[in-house]
Amino acid sequence: MTRLIEELRKLPGVGSKSAQRLAFHILRSSEADADALSTAIRALKAQLRLCSICNNITDVDPCTYCTSPTRNQHTVCVLEEPTNIASIEKTRGYNGVYHILHGTLSPLNGIGPEQLRTANLYNRLGTLEEIILALSPTIEGEATANYLAQELRRAAPELRVTRIATGVPAGSDIEYADEVTMSRAMEGRREI
Amino acid sequence: MTRLIEELRKLPGVGSKSAQRLAFHILRSSEADADALSTAIRALKAQLRLCSICNNITDVDPCTYCTSPTRNQHTVCVLEEPTNIASIEKTRGYNGVYHILHGTLSPLNGIGPEQLRTANLYNRLGTLEEIILALSPTIEGEATANYLAQELRRAAPELRVTRIATGVPAGSDIEYADEVTMSRAMEGRREI
Repeated sequence: MTRLIEELRKLPGVGSKSAQRLAFHILRSSEADADALSTAIRALKAQLRLCSICNNITDVDPCTYCTSPTRNQHTVCVLEEPTNIASIEKTRGYNGVYHILHGTLSPLNGIGPEQLRTANLYNRLGTLEEIILALSPTIEGEATANYLAQELRRAAPELRVTRIATGVPAGSDIEYADEVTMSRAMEGRREI
Repeated sequence: MTRLIEELRKLPGVGSKSAQRLAFHILRSSEADADALSTAIRALKAQLRLCSICNNITDVDPCTYCTSPTRNQHTVCVLEEPTNIASIEKTRGYNGVYHILHGTLSPLNGIGPEQLRTANLYNRLGTLEEIILALSPTIEGEATANYLAQELRRAAPELRVTRIATGVPAGSDIEYADEVTMSRAMEGRREI
């Protein structure tokens, strides 16, 4: 029992109280249910892995994006998390492939340049025409984008490296834009 | 009493119930207070007017922006409302002047191209280098920006006409961006 509570406590958002509650729930549930949970955890780790090309979570390696014949394999969209792929796919306007960093630079949390999963991105630079840094315009996202842009320019001077626009969100009134956003929207103005 | 209630009902957001409540409040207040309110309303209209150059609300005509020797009089930022000036000034990054439309195209509300206050903008086109359309990325704002861009190109083909960036707001995670915003952020990407 103590061992299970300790293991449960390692999960994000699970404190000692909830770990205890979860453990008691498992204790009271049927053996079949406990077995199913245990098997599902093992199966997940056995079946899912990170794509060796783009770090996306996948059950086949390379993932379906990296092997798709209908997608442009010369444009890579760099994202923080695998869940961000959905945000880009929903736009229905992007037909390139992805690279997942699994995090952003965050010195306070011990994430430096070495902790970013970029080795396989550098390995395929030779085949690329554009890298779109679709990182959030947060402090960490910006720092990561600036760092990567600098490194990528050094590694492949011919490569086009771009950054998604920061600005007033669609459908929103400029009345509600904070000054940093408004400032970036003015800087990022384009000919119409 | 009925006459005051009718006049109060013309104010935005004041229905018949609130008009009545306001009228009773005025009835109960001292004569000095009622007098002060009445005088203030008259004085406002007597003192404030629209700047003949930029349509900004001002007590001197032309307004202080239009006569400022330290501001760039060759760049005009086009805004929907006088209150939007504060949003741009807060960025501390803009040193041009303004033009206020006092509204956007909105056919359903009877606001067509003729109702936009643009005559004085066209009058000063000859002295301008850039017009920044800082209209909200709403349906009305976009329609107005597209209409103005087309008209301005026709009237002054040499003029630079730009539009503020639509994109993910600063400090926000792309996880929370809707698909239209994300789509515009991708389209509006810039070299870093």
